[in-house]
Amino acid sequence: MALKRMAITVAYDGTAYSGFQRQQNAPSIQGEIEKVLKRVTGTHITVNGASRTDAGVHARGQCAHFDTTSNIPAEKYPFVFNTQLPRDIRITEARVVSEVFHARFSSRGKIYTYRIHNARHADALLRNLTAHVPVPIDVGKMQDAAKMLLGTRDFAGFCATGSNAKTTVRTLSAIDIAQDGPLITLTVQGNAFLYNMVRIITGTLIEIGQDKRSPDCLLEALETKNRLVLGITAPAHGLELTKIFYDENNLVPFPITEEGR
Amino acid sequence: MALKRMAITVAYDGTAYSGFQRQQNAPSIQGEIEKVLKRVTGTHITVNGASRTDAGVHARGQCAHFDTTSNIPAEKYPFVFNTQLPRDIRITEARVVSEVFHARFSSRGKIYTYRIHNARHADALLRNLTAHVPVPIDVGKMQDAAKMLLGTRDFAGFCATGSNAKTTVRTLSAIDIAQDGPLITLTVQGNAFLYNMVRIITGTLIEIGQDKRSPDCLLEALETKNRLVLGITAPAHGLELTKIFYDENNLVPFPITEEGR
Repeated sequence: MALKRMAITVAYDGTAYSGFQRQQNAPSIQGEIEKVLKRVTGTHITVNGASRTDAGVHARGQCAHFDTTSNIPAEKYPFVFNTQLPRDIRITEARVVSEVFHARFSSRGKIYTYRIHNARHADALLRNLTAHVPVPIDVGKMQDAAKMLLGTRDFAGFCATGSNAKTTVRTLSAIDIAQDGPLITLTVQGNAFLYNMVRIITGTLIEIGQDKRSPDCLLEALETKNRLVLGITAPAHGLELTKIFYDENNLVPFPITEEGR
Repeated sequence: MALKRMAITVAYDGTAYSGFQRQQNAPSIQGEIEKVLKRVTGTHITVNGASRTDAGVHARGQCAHFDTTSNIPAEKYPFVFNTQLPRDIRITEARVVSEVFHARFSSRGKIYTYRIHNARHADALLRNLTAHVPVPIDVGKMQDAAKMLLGTRDFAGFCATGSNAKTTVRTLSAIDIAQDGPLITLTVQGNAFLYNMVRIITGTLIEIGQDKRSPDCLLEALETKNRLVLGITAPAHGLELTKIFYDENNLVPFPITEEGR
């Protein structure tokens, strides 16, 4: 049986997990998916995620790939996984891809969503999917400031220490901020993101929207690369990895060969 | 210290509870609120909810009242409650009301919301707040059929057996059905609702939108009062009690006396 590379789209509520990446003594998304693969195929198969989301971070469009000789047809995989995975992890798509496809390195862009519940009391229903910010935020001020970050820039200042990225230059192509009652939703699109970059941008924009910090700090951080002039890192549980772009397909990895379609 | 009647607005994720109403051996919203009141005031105080929502049903705008001699100011109650309640229950408002106010009997109308995730695979993030319906639904057909239910009608056929309502005549003033990707949201407003009425309406409209049932069944059920011509009772966890209307105020009980404001 020939080896095939499968790419899957993964959605999860990250609340109960230590993050995407497998860990020794803590539940992870990767670990849960690998457990099912072992049960189904009888062998350990490593699952490679596009993004190592942190503990508490959610995803609708995480992508992962793995290699297998199993003859399960691609379209059956979501059902095979979803009958055995916990309810807070769902595989929404699966397809055979070229053997040079890599969930992480083939990525051409990503969309992240950050949700804020801006009201005096936290949201009982969306408590794990929104960050509660009790102090009022002026969304217009957030929107105006966000524009300063668009384009290709050195985001070294917008990065948690300990990152080992080769370059800190990234292109932000869109930051949309929408308000629907107490819910403020940031949607950020770029070619790639540094560690904690979306959460640092969000935390800083919140402080700008509360007049706690001047919008000038964004330009200052771009120039000086100094993390300290920016705001807090917004909490993990407001963040969702929404979409990953691959060549010639906006939603899921494009099958470079026609094999297995 | 004089006895005061307090009205509170309650939001909750009903997933972990056996319903609003206190029960002997199962966690309930009422039970959790009464536990905090006992801790705070030292006495058992009964909390009267406007609606006895079923196990798994959620609320953003449940209302409840209770009588107390405590001198905690009304505006402090949400903070007192929210520091002690589990995170899936929040008190969003509190006010002193007239001693003739009753959360259940003073209600003039309610809004319920029902959420459907209409996609092949369930929603990992909103799994407890949406009912998963994998078979495609034509929302236009649901909308057309829903119009037949508007107005003042005898809804005896739209009611679970075991209901002991004096009259089964109810007025439905609005049914709005919106689609946003895989999420279908029904918003139903009426003067009052029979037991399971929103879930039976929803279950039937889903079947109409799937061509499993003719829209004529709605008129037939109104005429014959026969529950059996309608569709299934949609699952509890898609339902949310969104808003309760009281005289002269759309959101929360109106304080008929000025006492304590």
